Amino acid sequence: MDVSMLTPAQARSLIRQDQWNKPTSGMSNGYIQANLVVLPKALAYDFLLFCQRNPKPCPLLEVTNIGSPIPEIFAPEADLRTDLPEYYVYKKGELIQKCSSISDLWSESLIAFLIGCSFTFEEALVKNRIPIRHIEERKNVPMYNTSIRCQPAGEFQGSMVVSMRPIKKKDVIRAVQVTSRFPSVHGAPIHIGDPKSIGISQLDEPDFGDPVTIKEDEVPVFWACGVTPQAIAKDRKPDLMITHAPGHMFITNERNEGYSV
Amino acid sequence: MDVSMLTPAQARSLIRQDQWNKPTSGMSNGYIQANLVVLPKALAYDFLLFCQRNPKPCPLLEVTNIGSPIPEIFAPEADLRTDLPEYYVYKKGELIQKCSSISDLWSESLIAFLIGCSFTFEEALVKNRIPIRHIEERKNVPMYNTSIRCQPAGEFQGSMVVSMRPIKKKDVIRAVQVTSRFPSVHGAPIHIGDPKSIGISQLDEPDFGDPVTIKEDEVPVFWACGVTPQAIAKDRKPDLMITHAPGHMFITNERNEGYSV
Repeated sequence: MDVSMLTPAQARSLIRQDQWNKPTSGMSNGYIQANLVVLPKALAYDFLLFCQRNPKPCPLLEVTNIGSPIPEIFAPEADLRTDLPEYYVYKKGELIQKCSSISDLWSESLIAFLIGCSFTFEEALVKNRIPIRHIEERKNVPMYNTSIRCQPAGEFQGSMVVSMRPIKKKDVIRAVQVTSRFPSVHGAPIHIGDPKSIGISQLDEPDFGDPVTIKEDEVPVFWACGVTPQAIAKDRKPDLMITHAPGHMFITNERNEGYSV
Repeated sequence: MDVSMLTPAQARSLIRQDQWNKPTSGMSNGYIQANLVVLPKALAYDFLLFCQRNPKPCPLLEVTNIGSPIPEIFAPEADLRTDLPEYYVYKKGELIQKCSSISDLWSESLIAFLIGCSFTFEEALVKNRIPIRHIEERKNVPMYNTSIRCQPAGEFQGSMVVSMRPIKKKDVIRAVQVTSRFPSVHGAPIHIGDPKSIGISQLDEPDFGDPVTIKEDEVPVFWACGVTPQAIAKDRKPDLMITHAPGHMFITNERNEGYSV
């Protein structure tokens, strides 16, 4: 089965029926995929404000109504309790469960946040013939903690997590141009070159994901990463927090191109 | 005195000392000016969510911490209680007072929202030799209620208000390009041409502001307007709401160009 050609509704249906429990990379090509963070309403204002103040690592696509698992704007017929292949459940900041449905955990006090993900701008890079190393090497993108402080908001504070993609020197300018067109999904890089100046000591020892090869004629280019809001929410040790499992995203009805400028 | 050359701090100092009580258009050229909406914290989550769901009419620049009148990001040494030339005070949706300071009305339960304003993209249009009719005619920009529904959020709902600028047919494409670069301040137009298709029946009878001349070789071009969040908040009849008086904006320390893509 070529899952790249599935409509978003078809892909979500497979996932909902537990017929697909793998990462969603490459499914329903051309459609926006989103990171998920579910939090209790008591923390929702501070988290929403954190995202407003830090739009590069936390590009909010949609926030559901209080108690509703339905993303009315990005996929009104979907259900965020069942339509992702895998969820991580945290209590007081500890990962306590991995599961394929959160229907039994859902309650009237929960709110779901959908956050833009790098798949969107990676597709645009590939279309511009700029290859993505971790895709070539079939790895997870390398991600790093940095010394860049996010703007704090209420109970949430911390540093930015970035993802890194090695880009050929001749392609760096084009990579900036292409990704700048997608401000709702991290947008332009936040740093090019020297990792030490943003507090990264070892490129071959990422804090999350896998190391990738950096070739002679390449420069490391860093983008703000959607792991940031998850990491910062986890630090706050909420009574309950639910996220997507890495790479197991929510597939929306909206096309990547619809969110470019 | 040429107020266009004042630094933002100098302009705010004049205003704070009641030595400037006129509109801020043309002051501190090149710096972002902002709309102000102050609301009680009980309404803050819904209002923040409304802005998140409707970024074109409600491009949020900054939200202060609960009880704080200090815009830490856009002008940390400023005070939103005194640094605008004129404020409108609403109780239960009724305008009850116009004043040059809200220090006596401020309380620990208030939150200030700074929202991007069209001055930023108008400056960019003028720099591109696209004249702005209401500036030429020394009028207020014409604004209209439309049939375009905003995405509702909690207690806030309603239709979008738009501003209209007549643009020469040959300049329309350039006007779209230039304003698209400023998504944090309304961005690209939401409509070009036929007013009826967005529910506007009479261009010479704006709902807010003044009518302006539309010449033979011009097309009406419509942008989402920052009056939208004010109008929608007022409809909710909050116990207390404070806004800037029309045209009497808050001058930030940030440059217009810093917020373009």
